[in-house]
Amino acid sequence: MKIINTIAEMKEIVRAAKSDGKNIALVPTLGYLHEGHVSLIKHARKAGDLLVVSLFVNPLQFCPGEDFEKYPRNEGWDHSVCRKNGVDIIFNPMPEEMFSVDHSTYVNEESLSQSLCGKTRPGHFRGVATIVAKLFNIICPSVAVFGQKDAQQALIIKRVVRDLNIDVEIVVLSTVRDQDGLALSSRNEYLNIDEKQDALCLHEALSLARILVSSGERETKRVIKKMEAVINQRKTAKIDYIKVTDSETLHSSDQLKGSVLIALAVYIGKARLIDNVIVHIEEK
Amino acid sequence: MKIINTIAEMKEIVRAAKSDGKNIALVPTLGYLHEGHVSLIKHARKAGDLLVVSLFVNPLQFCPGEDFEKYPRNEGWDHSVCRKNGVDIIFNPMPEEMFSVDHSTYVNEESLSQSLCGKTRPGHFRGVATIVAKLFNIICPSVAVFGQKDAQQALIIKRVVRDLNIDVEIVVLSTVRDQDGLALSSRNEYLNIDEKQDALCLHEALSLARILVSSGERETKRVIKKMEAVINQRKTAKIDYIKVTDSETLHSSDQLKGSVLIALAVYIGKARLIDNVIVHIEEK
Repeated sequence: MKIINTIAEMKEIVRAAKSDGKNIALVPTLGYLHEGHVSLIKHARKAGDLLVVSLFVNPLQFCPGEDFEKYPRNEGWDHSVCRKNGVDIIFNPMPEEMFSVDHSTYVNEESLSQSLCGKTRPGHFRGVATIVAKLFNIICPSVAVFGQKDAQQALIIKRVVRDLNIDVEIVVLSTVRDQDGLALSSRNEYLNIDEKQDALCLHEALSLARILVSSGERETKRVIKKMEAVINQRKTAKIDYIKVTDSETLHSSDQLKGSVLIALAVYIGKARLIDNVIVHIEEK
Repeated sequence: MKIINTIAEMKEIVRAAKSDGKNIALVPTLGYLHEGHVSLIKHARKAGDLLVVSLFVNPLQFCPGEDFEKYPRNEGWDHSVCRKNGVDIIFNPMPEEMFSVDHSTYVNEESLSQSLCGKTRPGHFRGVATIVAKLFNIICPSVAVFGQKDAQQALIIKRVVRDLNIDVEIVVLSTVRDQDGLALSSRNEYLNIDEKQDALCLHEALSLARILVSSGERETKRVIKKMEAVINQRKTAKIDYIKVTDSETLHSSDQLKGSVLIALAVYIGKARLIDNVIVHIEEK
């Protein structure tokens, strides 16, 4: 396994791999890897000849006042996880390597980015789309693997790839949860024992929504109200949003129909956690 | 010479060329080709194994109220110019092929785009950067050739390529002029005989600026004032802007120093024409 810190070295490796006819698989991450990332890495290991994992806490996708500085980092751990899972190349540049002091070009998805997390985190998806476009241009993957926990991010990346004609297949894998149902996230690190218990409310609310839908509930408002009740029972929980939308367009509607994304963001203490499910509603 | 209308066919040709180890040279144009384009095509012919010229009047780079609908088009002529100059592939898609109805991703250069033409034409450079990124992703050129007449566009494209780590060399070639000094442009087509005479004022003003600088003038204001006087003598001319800036950063300054871009945009009747020179000022 090689650890690469510069764009020039990374491009050199990509050129060599391409001229050997190798396909590249990429798993872009912010590091602090958990079993969710491992599931992406394992999939990517089978999907490409050369497996690249990027570890980059991208300053551009953190808004002012967010947790960029204290976002958890542990390179030693990340390297050992990658080594154990057959990663060929870790791309681990410094922010100064990725962004010139006079960097001024951004990739902006202007429709899907407007709702859900895009409302609470203005500029976040601009940062995501820009860094992902850069990584795709540097690493030229045939396939890139993302997690469904970041449902909106996955949709936006697919849109960017389509709209800018980037030649890469985007694979989105199911959210990995701990035994209690909590979606794995590097930000779970922020939770103390009580908060970790309270954090289960995200999954509980989504599970309730799923039950309501399968028992015939079609009123968006009623679903959201009952989800809110579940979350508001928890002392350290504060709802950022609960949204019920079309799973492709992210348009909201009063009535649940078709393929529906139920997504939420909840502050548990200082940690802002997100989770979602997609439910398919059969026409009567 | 092949004429290609779909992205899928174009990508297939690119894949085949790449696997044969061929380098691709691209000249992106709006069509209605003139000798300025021909100089780009001739350069590109030598720079790549496979020479692609794109003909695409990109709706995204025209602002509301601009001349998108009546922008001059003549495919038959363009094809014959390309054939005569050894072009291998014309990429000539329809707008519907390039932009999905729900297209929502844009490449935005946010610094160099703010001044000069960016002020008069809000959204223009967003349209340029987006289409150029798309063409680069579809055609994967090793080299792409642009004209210095569009000085700001050339700077912005270089910046986009650097910031997004796109693997392409950007070549910028000198402005081609007619025998009277008028910079060639498809929009010269709009000029009647009197206007064509008046349009010479752009070149005259730039020539005067050059003379002023070489005779020691260093005051930006005085240079601009004398250029304005030259243009205002012409009945059909209306100044959009005259700017004297650093040729790399496009920052204005009161004193001319270093490498200086002198650029202007002037309406001649309904036609908005642009031109520029770069002068290098030696330190005393």
